[in-house]
Amino acid sequence: MISPKPIPTLPVPFPRTLAAELTARIGRQVTLKGWLHRKRVLKSVAFLVLRDRSGLAQAVLSEPRAVAALCALPEETVLQVTGTATARAQAPGGVEVTSPTVSALSGPAAPPPFDLYRPVVPATLPTVLDHAPVALRHPLLRAPHTLAAASVAGFRAALDALGFTEIHTPKVVASATESGANVFSLDWFGRTAYLAQSPQFFKQAMVGVFERVYETGPVFRAEPHDTARHLAQYTSLDAELGFVADHHDVMAVLREVLAVMTATVEERAGEACALLGVTPPEVPERIPVLHFAEAQELLAAHTDEDPRGEPDLSPAHERWLSRWALREHGSEFLFVTGYPMAKRPFYTHPEPGRPQYSNSFDLLFRGLELVTGGQRLHRHEDYLAALSARGESPEPYAGYLAAFRHGMPPHGGFALGLERWTARLTAADNVRRVTLFPRDLHRLTP
Amino acid sequence: MISPKPIPTLPVPFPRTLAAELTARIGRQVTLKGWLHRKRVLKSVAFLVLRDRSGLAQAVLSEPRAVAALCALPEETVLQVTGTATARAQAPGGVEVTSPTVSALSGPAAPPPFDLYRPVVPATLPTVLDHAPVALRHPLLRAPHTLAAASVAGFRAALDALGFTEIHTPKVVASATESGANVFSLDWFGRTAYLAQSPQFFKQAMVGVFERVYETGPVFRAEPHDTARHLAQYTSLDAELGFVADHHDVMAVLREVLAVMTATVEERAGEACALLGVTPPEVPERIPVLHFAEAQELLAAHTDEDPRGEPDLSPAHERWLSRWALREHGSEFLFVTGYPMAKRPFYTHPEPGRPQYSNSFDLLFRGLELVTGGQRLHRHEDYLAALSARGESPEPYAGYLAAFRHGMPPHGGFALGLERWTARLTAADNVRRVTLFPRDLHRLTP
Repeated sequence: MISPKPIPTLPVPFPRTLAAELTARIGRQVTLKGWLHRKRVLKSVAFLVLRDRSGLAQAVLSEPRAVAALCALPEETVLQVTGTATARAQAPGGVEVTSPTVSALSGPAAPPPFDLYRPVVPATLPTVLDHAPVALRHPLLRAPHTLAAASVAGFRAALDALGFTEIHTPKVVASATESGANVFSLDWFGRTAYLAQSPQFFKQAMVGVFERVYETGPVFRAEPHDTARHLAQYTSLDAELGFVADHHDVMAVLREVLAVMTATVEERAGEACALLGVTPPEVPERIPVLHFAEAQELLAAHTDEDPRGEPDLSPAHERWLSRWALREHGSEFLFVTGYPMAKRPFYTHPEPGRPQYSNSFDLLFRGLELVTGGQRLHRHEDYLAALSARGESPEPYAGYLAAFRHGMPPHGGFALGLERWTARLTAADNVRRVTLFPRDLHRLTP
Repeated sequence: MISPKPIPTLPVPFPRTLAAELTARIGRQVTLKGWLHRKRVLKSVAFLVLRDRSGLAQAVLSEPRAVAALCALPEETVLQVTGTATARAQAPGGVEVTSPTVSALSGPAAPPPFDLYRPVVPATLPTVLDHAPVALRHPLLRAPHTLAAASVAGFRAALDALGFTEIHTPKVVASATESGANVFSLDWFGRTAYLAQSPQFFKQAMVGVFERVYETGPVFRAEPHDTARHLAQYTSLDAELGFVADHHDVMAVLREVLAVMTATVEERAGEACALLGVTPPEVPERIPVLHFAEAQELLAAHTDEDPRGEPDLSPAHERWLSRWALREHGSEFLFVTGYPMAKRPFYTHPEPGRPQYSNSFDLLFRGLELVTGGQRLHRHEDYLAALSARGESPEPYAGYLAAFRHGMPPHGGFALGLERWTARLTAADNVRRVTLFPRDLHRLTP
C-alpha cells in the first residue's frame, strides 16, 4: 500500500527568460525557448534569431561546430538557447545571448509555406488561410489577433464596471427567427434546428433577469456572398440593458465601451499596434450624432445625389458621412440615428411622434457601419401589433414573446462584430485577415 | 439644410437609485426602478417590495388611493417608485421608501408561472426550464448565473495575468474528429459539416502562434443520454500552453486558475453565494496528487473492490478518492494523474518509462471529475504512430497534424465545463439548474 503522505509537490514551472526580458538580465545566464525565426551565417560568426510570445531575441555563435549545427537546423524548429545576456549596441534591443548552448525541443521543422521572417508577408491571402496554423506565426499576421483579444477584454471590462452580467446562450435554436434567410439548419436528434444568427432574443429576455447583460460569442450567418466583409461565423459582442429612456442611453453606454476598448488595446497590445502601424482612434467625449433625416439633408445639399425618400444609406453615403464627421467634428465615429422602421427588425422601437423613423442607430467608424443598436419594443401588445403590421405570425416567436407578457422595462442594446472592428482598426482589406480560421461559402478548413 | 453644429449632447443616463444604494441615501429623495416583487396590504398601510438587479427595496404606502392603485398592480409589473429614503429598523436593510409616487413602466404583467417572491422555488425543474425567461427572475434561480459569470471572469483574469491570449475558433468543422460519435451534422452550403465538440485542435495549433491561449465558448455534444450531468451544448473553459516540462506544469497553471476563480466568485458574487448558502472551496497551495496506479492501490486496500487492471475510475471510485483527499489532506480537490493511455484520446502524451500510462490528469472536485487535461504529443511522427497504433487513418486529421510538422514545443492544457463547475459549487442536483437555456435530447426551447 502506498503512503498517502507527503503530498507530492508540484514543480515551480517555467524557469525561462522571455525575449522581452533579456535587457533586464544583462550579465546573467539565461535560458530562452522559442522558434528558430531566422539564422544568418557570416564568415566567422552566425546569428540565430529566436521568436517567442514576447518578441525576438538574438544569439551569436562563433564556435565552428556550433555554427555548423545551426546551419543544419531548419527555421521554425523549436529551440532552447542557454547563454549569457550581453549588451551589444548593434543587436536588436541592445542585447544578445553570447556563448549559447542550443538544443532542439522539436524535430527539425518542415519548411513553412512562406518565409516567416520576412518583414512583409510574402504570400497571398488564400495561402495564408490555407496554412493558418503556421502562417499566423508571422508577427504581422499574429498581431491583429493580439489587438482583437485586447479589444474583447476592454469590452468586458467596460460592461463589468457598469454592472452588466455575462451570459452564455444557446447557439442552436428551434426556429429560424429574426430573418428566415441565411440560416444554417442542422439535425438535432432527428429534428430540424438552426444555428443562432444572434443572441438577440435571449439577451432581451435576460434584461428581465439581470437588467444589464452581455455576451461575447459566435453567431452564424449562411451568407451566400463571397465578399471581403462577410463571414459565415463571426464573434459578436452583444450588450443589452434595461431602464433606458431611449436609444441615446444605449449610445452613451456604447461610447464608454469604445473608450475602454481602445484604451485596453493601447495598454495590452501596444507592441502589436506599433508593429502594424496602428493608432487606435480617439473616442470623443461626445460622439457626433446625426438623425437619418438630417444625414439625408446633408447628402442632398453636398453631394450629387439626393437620397431623400430612400429607406437606407448606401456604402458611399456612409463613407461621405464619416468624412464629414471627421472634417467637421474631428471624430472618426459618427452616430446615425432614426433609421426608417421599414429597414429595421420588427422588435425595433419606433420614434415617438414620427413612427416612420425608429429609435435605432448605426455607429459609423472610418467609413463603415461598425455597430447596430437601438431601443426595442418592451410591451407585449406592441410586439403583436408590429408582427401583424408586417404580416407575420407571432407563432415562431412565442418563446421570445412570452417574456414581454410578464413585465419588461424599456430597454435597448447593440451588437459589434469583433472581426469587423479589428479589420477597421488595422485597415485590413479583408475581414479574413483578422479571423484565425475563417468560415465562409467556400472555406471549412483548416 | 441643417446646421452641422453644435454636436448633439448625449444625456447623462440613468438618474436612478438601486435598491442596494438606498441605505446611503437616507433622508433624501430617491427614484427606484424595478419589478413589483411582492405587495402586502395590511389594514392601514401597504408594503411594496421592488426588485432590481442589486436586490430588494421596500416602500410603504398609507394614502388610501395609492394603496388601492397598488392592489390593482400584478406582481412583475415594472415600476418607478419615487419617495424619501427613510430609516426604519424593521425594514429590510433598515431603510424603506416613504410617501412614494408609483408609476408603471410596463403594462400590467401577466402572472408568472409560479410566485417569484416565495423564499423557496415552488416549481419543478421542467416548469422552471419551460419558463426560463421569467423563472430565472427568482433570486434563487438567478444567483447561480451570477456565480458562473464571476467564475468565467476569474478564469480569464488568471490566464491574462499569466500571458495567455484569448482566441475565437470555428464552431463548425469539416470532419467529425476527436470522436466520431455524438456529433451534430449540418448543411454547410450544400456540404456536410459538423458542430465542434471542442476547440482542442485549434487551441493546440495556436500554441505555435501565441504559446499560451484560452477560449471560453460553446461546444456541442450530441449526447443521446438524458442524465442530470449531460448537456448537448455547454460552455467550455479551455486553456493550452507551450514549453511545459510535462503535465505537472499544466496542473500548476490550473491550480492558479482555480484560486483566482474562487477569489473572484467571493469578490463579485458574494451576495449570490450568501443567498444560496454557498462557500467557495479553499484551493490548497498544493492540491494533492495521486497517480492512477496509486489510486487503484488505495481503493484496493481500503474498499471492498479491487479495481487494479481496470482502465478507468468509476464514479464510485471518484467519490471515494474525493473523500480520501478531504479526510487525509483537507482538500476538496484531488489530481489523479497517469490515466491509462487506452482511455485517453490519441493526442495524449504517454508517461515516459511507463507507456501504458499517460501524462494526463483529471481534477476531482467534491466527488466528481471537474477538469480533464494533460500533456499532448508535439512531434509529427508521434501523431502518425499514435493514429496507426489505433488503426486510424491520419487523413481526417490532416489539417490538425500539419501544425506539428512545422515545429511545436512540448505543450498541454485542460478543459473545464462551466456548468459542471457551477453545479458543483452550488450543489445543484442537475446541471440544467445552472444553465440559462439548456439544450439536450429533448429540449430545444425556449
